[in-house]
Amino acid sequence: MAQGTIAERMLATHPRDLNLDREALARCLQACAECAQACTLCADACLGEQSVQEMITCIGLCLDCADVCAATGRVVGRQTQADATVMTTLLGACAAVCRACGDECEQHGRHGMKHCAVCAQACRDCEDACRRMLEALA
Amino acid sequence: MAQGTIAERMLATHPRDLNLDREALARCLQACAECAQACTLCADACLGEQSVQEMITCIGLCLDCADVCAATGRVVGRQTQADATVMTTLLGACAAVCRACGDECEQHGRHGMKHCAVCAQACRDCEDACRRMLEALA
Amino acid sequence: MAQGTIAERMLATHPRDLNLDREALARCLQACAECAQACTLCADACLGEQSVQEMITCIGLCLDCADVCAATGRVVGRQTQADATVMTTLLGACAAVCRACGDECEQHGRHGMKHCAVCAQACRDCEDACRRMLEALA
Amino acid sequence: MAQGTIAERMLATHPRDLNLDREALARCLQACAECAQACTLCADACLGEQSVQEMITCIGLCLDCADVCAATGRVVGRQTQADATVMTTLLGACAAVCRACGDECEQHGRHGMKHCAVCAQACRDCEDACRRMLEALA
Repeated sequence: MAQGTIAERMLATHPRDLNLDREALARCLQACAECAQACTLCADACLGEQSVQEMITCIGLCLDCADVCAATGRVVGRQTQADATVMTTLLGACAAVCRACGDECEQHGRHGMKHCAVCAQACRDCEDACRRMLEALA
Repeated sequence: MAQGTIAERMLATHPRDLNLDREALARCLQACAECAQACTLCADACLGEQSVQEMITCIGLCLDCADVCAATGRVVGRQTQADATVMTTLLGACAAVCRACGDECEQHGRHGMKHCAVCAQACRDCEDACRRMLEALA
Repeated sequence: MAQGTIAERMLATHPRDLNLDREALARCLQACAECAQACTLCADACLGEQSVQEMITCIGLCLDCADVCAATGRVVGRQTQADATVMTTLLGACAAVCRACGDECEQHGRHGMKHCAVCAQACRDCEDACRRMLEALA
Repeated sequence: MAQGTIAERMLATHPRDLNLDREALARCLQACAECAQACTLCADACLGEQSVQEMITCIGLCLDCADVCAATGRVVGRQTQADATVMTTLLGACAAVCRACGDECEQHGRHGMKHCAVCAQACRDCEDACRRMLEALA
């Protein structure tokens, strides 16, 4: 029973005929959950840096990205009633904030902030998963 | 000190020069907070109805709307670092879910579901506040 | 229809017999929503201060308080099925974080940070509303 | 770089001396994230069941559990400033809602609702992880 991510295991037991690409959906939910966690922890790590003054933009974007990823994972996961316009616009917003946060974190990651490097990767993965989900819905 | 909404009072004390329409912003934050609350309570009220089977779509949309409004209020309120693309795409998604949820709740409101009538109004107000915020940002 | 807070108007239309003090509940939901908003905006305002290095604890507590107040408002508002132990322990946690955040913000408020003064008041109100709700449930 | 959970990888790069059991913390954050996801998806799956009328309590508890687990994961993960009373009371509330939701889902799982069986396991794991974290903090 413990095989696969929690999203895969939950989607495999859904009572409705999910009329979409289950694999893209499971990956998107997993990526949103991981990115939300990474960004929450990265904002906290940035706040703990000596050079916090230089991390202000990064903290703000990480907090934004965590909130949008968390909401997107919830909304896109609710498939019993699913509104295509709502999913599409929200996935677009999620991809946008993951792009902005990933760009910012990547820069700091290159300058030795390891938490930013890990977080940047989570943002890239989530942006990619949201864009694939958008393609699957098109 | 207790004059105005909490959003107005907080924005009036922000240390940065908020380079945007403060009134539109305060209204948007207040509308997002109220709509998130209304939708959370409407989903619960729908779940308590005898005719819950007919309320499935409404429950799902209310849960979605609550999540997106909550995230939008947080992100749009963070003005120390603010990303125009993130705000714009998210406000668009918020307006979309408020429209969908408002349409659904309005229908039930017309058929006597009073909580849906109150919630529909909150959705309309929030959609309008998001669209005005989008105009203010344009 | 526009009289009262959104919480009061929504609770007045709930289909179930809410077997508790509706006034205390409406006040608690309203206080949680306002405190969540105040703390989100206060964390952002603190992040915008020149003296951000001195605001680290305040930012962290405001982020925590916003998250707990938001969750408490959602859970305590869900009355169709309500678990007394869940409500009680969560209201206790909410009062605790409001106390900690209110103490921290009050200090900064006394030293001229106006956003902290407004936020401290929201924390005090929310702590009080949670404690009254706990009494009403006892 | 892709070894370990996202929580483990992020905590390994935190700039501060985390004065606590990092393993218990990483497990707790991971369990909160998985339980929040499972409960969000279980509430939706329950809503999609023919027998939705019998799932009302389960839906309500799953929504509560998702909200509390999400907030707990965020708050307990913020270690730059960490308040022991806040963490302790919130972990207690999280364990309580995981117990209540796990009990409810386990019952439905025994009667053939597979999503409830998966969700019950996530609730048990999260309750256990919260209790171990409480022991680690004691």
